[in-house]
Amino acid sequence: MTLVDEVRAAIGAERLIEDQDVQASYASDEAEWAPAGKPLLVVRPRTSAEVQEVVRACLRHRVPLVPRGAGTGLSGGANAIDGCVVLSTEQMTRIVEIDPVERLAVVQPGVVNDHLRAACAEYGLWYPPDPASAPWSTIGGNVATNAGGLCCVKYGVTRDYVLELEVVTGTGELVRLGRRTAKGVAGYDLAGLIVGSEGTLGVVTEVTVRLRPLREPERTVAGYFDSIVAAGEAVRAVGAAGVVPSALELVDRHCLAAVDAWKNMGLSVDANVVLLGRSDAPGPAGDAEAATMLACFDGAGATWAAVSTDADEAEALFAARRLAYPALERLGPVLTEDVCVPKAAVPEMLGRIEAVAARNDVLIANIAHAGDGNLHPLIITPVGDAAARGRAQVAFDQILSDALELGGTVTGEHGVGLLKRGGLSRELSPAVQAMHRAVKSALDPAGILNPGKVLPTAAEALQP
Amino acid sequence: MTLVDEVRAAIGAERLIEDQDVQASYASDEAEWAPAGKPLLVVRPRTSAEVQEVVRACLRHRVPLVPRGAGTGLSGGANAIDGCVVLSTEQMTRIVEIDPVERLAVVQPGVVNDHLRAACAEYGLWYPPDPASAPWSTIGGNVATNAGGLCCVKYGVTRDYVLELEVVTGTGELVRLGRRTAKGVAGYDLAGLIVGSEGTLGVVTEVTVRLRPLREPERTVAGYFDSIVAAGEAVRAVGAAGVVPSALELVDRHCLAAVDAWKNMGLSVDANVVLLGRSDAPGPAGDAEAATMLACFDGAGATWAAVSTDADEAEALFAARRLAYPALERLGPVLTEDVCVPKAAVPEMLGRIEAVAARNDVLIANIAHAGDGNLHPLIITPVGDAAARGRAQVAFDQILSDALELGGTVTGEHGVGLLKRGGLSRELSPAVQAMHRAVKSALDPAGILNPGKVLPTAAEALQP
Repeated sequence: MTLVDEVRAAIGAERLIEDQDVQASYASDEAEWAPAGKPLLVVRPRTSAEVQEVVRACLRHRVPLVPRGAGTGLSGGANAIDGCVVLSTEQMTRIVEIDPVERLAVVQPGVVNDHLRAACAEYGLWYPPDPASAPWSTIGGNVATNAGGLCCVKYGVTRDYVLELEVVTGTGELVRLGRRTAKGVAGYDLAGLIVGSEGTLGVVTEVTVRLRPLREPERTVAGYFDSIVAAGEAVRAVGAAGVVPSALELVDRHCLAAVDAWKNMGLSVDANVVLLGRSDAPGPAGDAEAATMLACFDGAGATWAAVSTDADEAEALFAARRLAYPALERLGPVLTEDVCVPKAAVPEMLGRIEAVAARNDVLIANIAHAGDGNLHPLIITPVGDAAARGRAQVAFDQILSDALELGGTVTGEHGVGLLKRGGLSRELSPAVQAMHRAVKSALDPAGILNPGKVLPTAAEALQP
Repeated sequence: MTLVDEVRAAIGAERLIEDQDVQASYASDEAEWAPAGKPLLVVRPRTSAEVQEVVRACLRHRVPLVPRGAGTGLSGGANAIDGCVVLSTEQMTRIVEIDPVERLAVVQPGVVNDHLRAACAEYGLWYPPDPASAPWSTIGGNVATNAGGLCCVKYGVTRDYVLELEVVTGTGELVRLGRRTAKGVAGYDLAGLIVGSEGTLGVVTEVTVRLRPLREPERTVAGYFDSIVAAGEAVRAVGAAGVVPSALELVDRHCLAAVDAWKNMGLSVDANVVLLGRSDAPGPAGDAEAATMLACFDGAGATWAAVSTDADEAEALFAARRLAYPALERLGPVLTEDVCVPKAAVPEMLGRIEAVAARNDVLIANIAHAGDGNLHPLIITPVGDAAARGRAQVAFDQILSDALELGGTVTGEHGVGLLKRGGLSRELSPAVQAMHRAVKSALDPAGILNPGKVLPTAAEALQP
């Protein structure tokens, strides 16, 4: 039997997408610059057992398997490989359990991040990781990339919340890794190893996450700045003042203008750069944190800054922040950076990004989880301008070099996928790359799990 | 050349302990029940390069290497193997860097936990993980076991604070894993994999940890209970009330009596079981949390309970908690459990432990990080009583079974070492054990790194 026949027999024709036009819509994520192949088959299993059947069929036929959540990834990690099986988790959307005493939730991987958050809120609980894609991206995809978000400057990233994973391994076994208890050291942290491995070490079929009690409402401090470097100085000042904000986001004039052009929010009239800080410390401690942030904004030369007393107004500012990326995508293909640098290096890095843009004559917009040094310079080129694309690629590599030079990393939260493979080969020493290959071979001996992602190719590994 | 000659030539005779009597004091940790072998050599390197020399010599001669911190481990993970090299980090005690803006510290592995905490406090910073062994245990040992502690019910365990590790690998390479930035997803989480691997995947030579701002002083809520199950009910009530205490510790009458016998603190007169809760929430929020905990204690039938307004009095209670283990060790060989169960199962598990003690006619004392379900039943036998030892071993296994039955784990924070290997084989499925072996082989292909620890032997793996 062919692989397609085997899979159809095992999980049913209604789980398969065999139409090539429909398949095409599952062939790539939102990393517009990353290449995507043509899948042999797209499957949409509903149960862990069905996922296991698909993995086992791929093993028997030595066909690559590419797992896929909502396809909101920004590094090409979910892009199809020619002749592969794309496994979409979009029909695995069940919230299996929310336990208010243990403060945990068990979900299938296709549950959308915001849906989980809403379900937890009914129990007075909170799932913190909040990538800007939260209205669309899935918990499984968040696990695969170890997604961050706005509040992780204070509350950490996806890995900090994953207690247990059910996974189909590279050898076709269905296993549970991790634990449901608050603590546990029984063996290696294989659950943590799977988190952020972008589908290359196993296919996640169920996720148990830790929850926190719902927070009190946050206070918002907004600041307008004339220059992005001045905003960066404000970020550094907040860090030096000992405040741990619950969010500290930067949005530059390109993003504000794009959001205005789309949603007519009138933001770009007043500000070149907006910095949004938040505190969720309870009572007077929160007032004090907000006041400290305000003083930091003013001290760094804000043209206007205030603690917002209007929840709607504050929410509108954060909505603009979340809309920045889709707004920019409307202008042309976006090449997305995701560097993360030490907090003290934020002003320097923002200055270097401006210099890269000028040097290469490309438009670079900036949104940033500035409080943790995670910057998203977004390189935008006119549709169909091949020369600009070439310059953008040069700018992209220069930004990676600048980040590494300042002690940073090439990817803070989006993952390596295809776009950062070259960067990974520059960030990690050859010995560490060899460790990665050894672990990959150990857990996926047949090499069927999302091959070609994350690990640099031989040519990339030879880069200086 | 012999291995000893090679190591002496490479790092200098003054780093070697060749006297067999002195070597004996490096042959075991505090797991009195675990077997220990006789080392060939003990080395005390001072630099990462010296560690690398030792590992490479072991590789050339295929001699096992057993890394060792302060030897406060409770599972036998640092116990010598016949003919091995014991590598003590006791001379690697340098605090390399404390960076108040990035909020991180870089230390050699032999730095004592409390020393790091004190050094951080001078910068207004705090290193949270606080195992009861903090006055003696080292950061390297804490990393090897993924140590927990009193405050991890709110602040997490060692792995949550490790940003970057310098490691000598099983192939003798000196590598850096992880990152210094607040976030980063460049490749697999190999730093997290090394944490808790008990020296079986690499030898840690430098640790970069995340720090937090110093906290405000904590409020302490003390409660006395007639029965341990009632105290367990109070713990469950605190969890159900939505409070996240900054500590929630249980000490039973056996521990109180042992501390009194040693330090004459007069604790055992008033209480059968003491429960100690803490809140470090700022201002009125902290008052509210303390009041809620007090109500939970009273509701569960505390014979006396109060919010302490006296810092010295509160500190004395916590000192008694920390002294409980050494106080009990004075009474006879202690077989230490470290089970962790779901919070809701704490009363049931405490009841089962009492039943196990009665059934097997052994003394079981209890200290517990009760707030996260991490219980330390301590089985104590008279010196030289072989029959009692046999009954203790049966009781030990029954407690593991009970914990697993209630959805728990055999080790919450002490690690597997030698004592929990059998338990691990019952907790993890054969497929997950196979994944462990694959990862071990991938990263330590010669099998020289602390062999025989953590992974069940073939016989243990066959247990039901």
